[in-house]
Amino acid sequence: MNNDLSLLGEFGIIDLFRSHARRANPWVTVGIGDDCAVMDMDGQRSLLVTTDMLLEDVHFRRSWARPRQLGWKSAAVNISDIAAMGGTPSGAFLGIGIPTDMKMDDLTGFRRGLDDCLRRYGVDLLGGDTVASTNGLAVSITLIGTAPSQDVVRRSGAMPGQRVFVAGTLGASAAGLFLLEGNECPGGLDADSRQELIRAHLEPRPLVDLGRTLAERHLATAMIDLSDGLLSDLGHLCDESRVGAVIKATALPICEPTRILADSLGLDPLEWAISGGEDYGLVFCTAPEDEAPVTAVGRDLDIPISAIGWTTGEESVIRLSVNHSMSAVSRKGWDHFAKTGRGEPDEPVP
Amino acid sequence: MNNDLSLLGEFGIIDLFRSHARRANPWVTVGIGDDCAVMDMDGQRSLLVTTDMLLEDVHFRRSWARPRQLGWKSAAVNISDIAAMGGTPSGAFLGIGIPTDMKMDDLTGFRRGLDDCLRRYGVDLLGGDTVASTNGLAVSITLIGTAPSQDVVRRSGAMPGQRVFVAGTLGASAAGLFLLEGNECPGGLDADSRQELIRAHLEPRPLVDLGRTLAERHLATAMIDLSDGLLSDLGHLCDESRVGAVIKATALPICEPTRILADSLGLDPLEWAISGGEDYGLVFCTAPEDEAPVTAVGRDLDIPISAIGWTTGEESVIRLSVNHSMSAVSRKGWDHFAKTGRGEPDEPVP
Repeated sequence: MNNDLSLLGEFGIIDLFRSHARRANPWVTVGIGDDCAVMDMDGQRSLLVTTDMLLEDVHFRRSWARPRQLGWKSAAVNISDIAAMGGTPSGAFLGIGIPTDMKMDDLTGFRRGLDDCLRRYGVDLLGGDTVASTNGLAVSITLIGTAPSQDVVRRSGAMPGQRVFVAGTLGASAAGLFLLEGNECPGGLDADSRQELIRAHLEPRPLVDLGRTLAERHLATAMIDLSDGLLSDLGHLCDESRVGAVIKATALPICEPTRILADSLGLDPLEWAISGGEDYGLVFCTAPEDEAPVTAVGRDLDIPISAIGWTTGEESVIRLSVNHSMSAVSRKGWDHFAKTGRGEPDEPVP
Repeated sequence: MNNDLSLLGEFGIIDLFRSHARRANPWVTVGIGDDCAVMDMDGQRSLLVTTDMLLEDVHFRRSWARPRQLGWKSAAVNISDIAAMGGTPSGAFLGIGIPTDMKMDDLTGFRRGLDDCLRRYGVDLLGGDTVASTNGLAVSITLIGTAPSQDVVRRSGAMPGQRVFVAGTLGASAAGLFLLEGNECPGGLDADSRQELIRAHLEPRPLVDLGRTLAERHLATAMIDLSDGLLSDLGHLCDESRVGAVIKATALPICEPTRILADSLGLDPLEWAISGGEDYGLVFCTAPEDEAPVTAVGRDLDIPISAIGWTTGEESVIRLSVNHSMSAVSRKGWDHFAKTGRGEPDEPVP
């Protein structure tokens, strides 16, 4: 057997753990394989639990982000997972490996950003573990939340012939990362737009109210948050729902400054939009008769909601329609272990 | 303000987070400051949640431990926190930062050890986050468990004049670490004893059945697990209960191989026993009339339980009685951020 982990990739590693994971406790409704695990609390309410790890020089650089922004983002990425199941986040647990050379001011800044985000979303910090790190800042946050059991939205509920929606815009975070990496914009992007992109990357705003509203009104048959990239995340939803999807490139809500930046560089903004990741909006599917109510919810909450395509019976295949030609695409978004890093669309499948 | 974090120390950093932590959600019974956070599930059962982070070269060295042992220990240290509140562990969430040069066999070994421990204690792996690490292996596990609400044992319930018990032995893990660090034993310790000490450090056995039995029978007024060291952990219990404690050196259940190793080196085994940490037994307090039932529980479960002293009204002061002389001692166990590392007993207080 080849002993090289990079061949397995992030999702192969998850499968390694998932395939051996035991499910013996009867209170568990959903285990590995969704945005959160779900457990029954009292026959009516469910407990949602999710965890994310952020490591220095992998997920962030301390030189790019103020400590306060790191604190905010550490909480936000987890809150987004609760949002994706229609839950209400309520408690946070912080594991933090603090570099021995970290300054008090920076730790205080991190704490403030974390608190800002937790308060904004009604979450209490309930526990954690504080350790010294000889190898950079390491942050691991576990978020717990609740939802009425009948409202929990899983990745697995979509059926062929349903609408696929994106809530929020696409590509801002990836373009912001591109700027943070020190790449220059050859003109065309004003300071506000530049800031908008960078803030999208550093201070994401999870769509908790939207997720909960869709869940309460039973408007989403399946939902996932946009963390790895549209193709990757929609791919997970399709896998779990055993459906495929067709998405229309022209319907994608690409963030305007992202479009401008890409144009000025001669790049295709589509790439950032479908593979960029970390936008922390939501992708969800809706029965045809619920399209109008979904649009109304977006209007009420002032969140852009875009119909980007539909589900198909072609299990786990995502087809992208660009300029009237349709091709199956790789669902790779950001794969932490793949040697190529970000995925590229495959060649068209005949 | 001095900007040096090491002056703050681990518990100062925890206080920094704790002092600002909000407690707005009414379902929370216990937040930061106990072995687990506690939340009400249905008016009768409580949810217990705890998290621990283990970092390479801080908490372990890959050259000292087989991956399977790391997997075991990562789960065990969290399960021990559930045990300390009298709960039953049920679900685990794994955040893992995997070094890019880690081999598949090692990851598989880690997974096996984790699974072995989780199965042994009836815990399901329910979720996690798998990321690449450029800076060594990072493991963060969150454990959830449950307990009947009326049985949950906190750190804060001890009263003056109660017995202090230790379940399990003391000093084996610290002596094992000493051997793992490459120190030699100048004779006197056979291979089995050597293995016993090293296994105590690498494969701790949390006392879940004991914790649960004490809780069910309401025999412990306050409890904490032995992670940082007896003085430090008992110190936390005293702080939260607003009591002091007197402990008798001769009553401490020092592990026999630890005693032999210390003797052969001309060291005092007491140091390992009171400040060594990572024994993962339990310390608890008991009303005087419950001493006999506690001893019976230990006998039934075949776990050594030792009466090591009693609680006093001298808030947060721990006195150690050695050779008929009594002195107040520093409660420092392992402090990750303190420049001195392990605490030394203070000078006698007049």
